[in-house]
Amino acid sequence: MMSTIIERQRTTELGASVGQRARIAGWLHAERRLGGMTFVVVRDGWGLAQVVVEHDTALAPLRDAGARNESVIAVTGTVVAAPGAPGGFELHAPEFTVITPVTETLPVTLSKREIKVSQATLRDQAVSANRHPSRRALLGLGAGAMRGFRAALDRRGFTEIQTPKIGATATEGGANVFRLDYFGRPAFLAQSPQFYKQIMVGVFERVYEVGPVFRAEPHDTTRHLNEYVSLDLEMGFIEDHFTIMALLRDVLAEIMATLATSHAGDLARLGATLPEVPAAIPHIHFDDAQELILRRHGVDVRGEPDLSPQDERWLGEWARDERGSDFLFVTGYPLRKRPFYTHPDPTRPASSNSFDLIFRGMELVTGGQRLHRYEDYLAALAHAGLAAEPFAWYLDAFHAGMPPHGGCAVGLERLVAQLTGLPSVKLAATFPRDLNRLTP
Amino acid sequence: MMSTIIERQRTTELGASVGQRARIAGWLHAERRLGGMTFVVVRDGWGLAQVVVEHDTALAPLRDAGARNESVIAVTGTVVAAPGAPGGFELHAPEFTVITPVTETLPVTLSKREIKVSQATLRDQAVSANRHPSRRALLGLGAGAMRGFRAALDRRGFTEIQTPKIGATATEGGANVFRLDYFGRPAFLAQSPQFYKQIMVGVFERVYEVGPVFRAEPHDTTRHLNEYVSLDLEMGFIEDHFTIMALLRDVLAEIMATLATSHAGDLARLGATLPEVPAAIPHIHFDDAQELILRRHGVDVRGEPDLSPQDERWLGEWARDERGSDFLFVTGYPLRKRPFYTHPDPTRPASSNSFDLIFRGMELVTGGQRLHRYEDYLAALAHAGLAAEPFAWYLDAFHAGMPPHGGCAVGLERLVAQLTGLPSVKLAATFPRDLNRLTP
Repeated sequence: MMSTIIERQRTTELGASVGQRARIAGWLHAERRLGGMTFVVVRDGWGLAQVVVEHDTALAPLRDAGARNESVIAVTGTVVAAPGAPGGFELHAPEFTVITPVTETLPVTLSKREIKVSQATLRDQAVSANRHPSRRALLGLGAGAMRGFRAALDRRGFTEIQTPKIGATATEGGANVFRLDYFGRPAFLAQSPQFYKQIMVGVFERVYEVGPVFRAEPHDTTRHLNEYVSLDLEMGFIEDHFTIMALLRDVLAEIMATLATSHAGDLARLGATLPEVPAAIPHIHFDDAQELILRRHGVDVRGEPDLSPQDERWLGEWARDERGSDFLFVTGYPLRKRPFYTHPDPTRPASSNSFDLIFRGMELVTGGQRLHRYEDYLAALAHAGLAAEPFAWYLDAFHAGMPPHGGCAVGLERLVAQLTGLPSVKLAATFPRDLNRLTP
Repeated sequence: MMSTIIERQRTTELGASVGQRARIAGWLHAERRLGGMTFVVVRDGWGLAQVVVEHDTALAPLRDAGARNESVIAVTGTVVAAPGAPGGFELHAPEFTVITPVTETLPVTLSKREIKVSQATLRDQAVSANRHPSRRALLGLGAGAMRGFRAALDRRGFTEIQTPKIGATATEGGANVFRLDYFGRPAFLAQSPQFYKQIMVGVFERVYEVGPVFRAEPHDTTRHLNEYVSLDLEMGFIEDHFTIMALLRDVLAEIMATLATSHAGDLARLGATLPEVPAAIPHIHFDDAQELILRRHGVDVRGEPDLSPQDERWLGEWARDERGSDFLFVTGYPLRKRPFYTHPDPTRPASSNSFDLIFRGMELVTGGQRLHRYEDYLAALAHAGLAAEPFAWYLDAFHAGMPPHGGCAVGLERLVAQLTGLPSVKLAATFPRDLNRLTP
C-alpha cells in the first residue's frame, strides 16, 4: 500500500472523514484481544479512538519497538462509523508508527475505566495519573469553570487584574502565611488578592482575578489545600452584600451553563449532575441558621462565632429538603470573626454585611461588603489591636476616596470537588500542595 | 425639582439617554471654571463625563462636604450631545450627591492629561496613580492582551491549566530563585510553569497558563521585574520549533486584533500604534544575526553565547528597515546557553531548536522545542552537571511517553511596555516588585 502524508486529525474529528484514510496520533491507551482481533485504543489531547487490527502483522511496528501502553504512536487507517466505539468511529486497516516507545509498565494503570489506587499513590503519581480520562475530565471541568467565570464578568464590564503574590503585608492575618526572604527583607505570599482587588475598584470599579493563593494552614484535612486557585471578584457602587450575592448567583449560573455546553462529556464521564442555580438562591441569617440547627437537630451552637463543617452539612440538607436548592447563602456572620475590613450590619452592629455560600453542604464562596471610609479603617484596625502602619499603602486607597464596595472569592478546587462529589478537595487539584507534599 | 430614583448609568452609556435625565456616579476627576461656568468631570470605571454647572448653587453639596478631587459622587443631569466633551455627551442642570468626600489634596495629581511625577513617586503612589486615565489605559491593554491570548488558544483546542507556584525544585536554575520555608522544608517559588506545562502536554496536548512567575534577579534594570505575568503555552506533536513560531505568530495577530477592537480608546490615549503582524514573521539564525551585526555595525559579537540588549536593538532596526517588520525571530541560540530541557538542532548540534522573538528591539518571547525522550533528559542533566534526583518527578512524564513538543512564554508587562514605548517595564506593572520594592 502506498502511503501519502495525511495531515493529522484529532480523535474527535474523525466523523468528518468516514470512508477515507485518516491519521491520528496520541498515546497507546489500551490494547485488548477479542475474537481473534486486536483493538488498540489511542488517546489524544481531546478523546479516544479505537483502532481495529484484523491482521497481527499490522502490529509489527509496536512489537518491534516493544511499545507498551502510553507509548506515543501515530495510526493511519480507514474511518468507519461504529456507534459502540469511544467517539463513535473506528480506524480499520491500520498502519502504525511508533513516535516514542514506552517499554516498561507504569505504576498507575490508565487503561481501566476507574483508577484503582490510593489517594496517596494518586498524588505521588499525579504526573501520569492525570492522563487518566477521569482525571482529565476533572481538570477539564476546572478549566471550563474558569472560562465561565471570566466570560460572565467580561460581559458585565469587569476588568481582569493580576496582582502581586509577594508582598510586605499579610492580608488575612498573621497565622497562616508563608514567609520568604526577599533580598534580605521579610516578605509574605498572598493569602488572597483582597487588598489589591479593593484598591483596583478605584481604577476599574469592577475587577476580577483568577490566580493562586497561599495558605500556610498547618492542618491536613479533606477541605484544605495550602495553595489553591481563587476566583476573585470585587465591585464598586454596591448597595450592600446582597448586590454581590445577586451577581454571584448570575456568575454561577453562567459557569454551569458553560459546563453544560462545553463539558457535557467530562460531566458524563464523572457521573456528575450539574446543580440548578435558582433564580434567587435562598438565604438565611447566621443567627437564624443556628436556631434552625437547634430546632432540627437538637444541637445548640448558638453563641459559636462560626459554622462548623457539620453545621454546613446540616444547612445544606435543609436547603435541599425545604427549598429545593443545592445552594444556600448564610448572611450576617458575627463581625468579630470576620476580617477587619468587613462592613458591619448598620442595623445589627454585632453582625456583618457578609455571606458564605454553601454548595451541597460545604462552604464554596466567602464574600461581603467592605468598609470604604478611611476613618472606619483606622477604627477597625485599632479595635482589632492591629497597628495601622503596615497597612499604610492599603489605606492610601481609602484616603483617596472609595465607594461602597464588596466582593467574594470562589475556591476553584472546592467547586470541582463539590460538583463531582469527591471525598477530598485535594483530588480536584492538578498537583496538590499540602502539609506533606511539595512534589510533583 | 422633584427627584425620582434613576438607575445609575455608565459614563460610556450616556448616548442612549440624550434629552433625558440620567444618573452617573464615580470620582470627582477634575473641576474648572471657564466663562462664569463650572465644568465638573466625573470618572467612573469605564470613562469620563463632563457636567456643566451654570449656577453655583448646584455645587452646594460638594462645597458643604469640602469635597475635593477624587471624592466619590453621584450626579443626575440632563444628557446633551457635546462632540467636544470627553465621551461626546454632557450632563446639564445637575444635582450632586457626595458619597465619600475627600477633603485633602492627594500626592499625585490625577486631573491633568499627563502624570508629572518621577518614576519612583509613581511607584510609591501606585494605589492612587493607577487611577490616572493614562495608567488605567496601560493596565487595560494588559487585560486585553490576556483576553486575546486566551481566546486565540481556546479556539485552537488548548486547555487552560493552573500549576503550583510553590515547589521542591527550581525550574530554570538555582541562581535567581526565591526560597521559602514550607513547614520546615526548603521550597522554591516557580520561575516559570515550564515543568508543569510540559507534563500537562501528556494530558491535554495543548495547554496554556496565565499567571505570576518569580525571578530573584538581584539587578535593578528597566527590563526586569522580580515578579511578572507570564503568558505560557505548550503544545505536543510539533515538527520542531517552527511549529511554535507559526502558532505564536497567529496568537500575536489575535492579541493585536483584540486590542484594535476592544481597546482603541486606550491605544489612542497612550498614542500607541499597534504593529502589523506579518503573515510570516522574518527569522534569522543566531549565527547569521551575529554576522549581520558585524557587517552593519562593525562590532564583532561572534562567539558570544547570547545577544545583548544592544544586539537586540540593532536586530530590531534591521527587521524594521530591511523587512518592514516590528517583529523578528532569532533562532538557533547556542545550546550551552539554553536550559537543559532544550532540544538540539539535529543538523547543527551546538545550536538549539529554540527562538527568541524580538519586538521593536527587545526580546518579548522565548521558546523552542524541548527534549521528549527520557534518555535524552538523563544525558542532558548529566551534561549540565545536574543530579537527576531532584527532577525525578518531572522525568516521570518522559518515562511515561511524551511526543515531540515545545512552547513559549510571553512577558505581559514587556508586551505592554513595548506596545506603548515605555522607558521601563516596571511602568507596565500594576504594582511592580523590584530589588527595593515590596509595597504597595
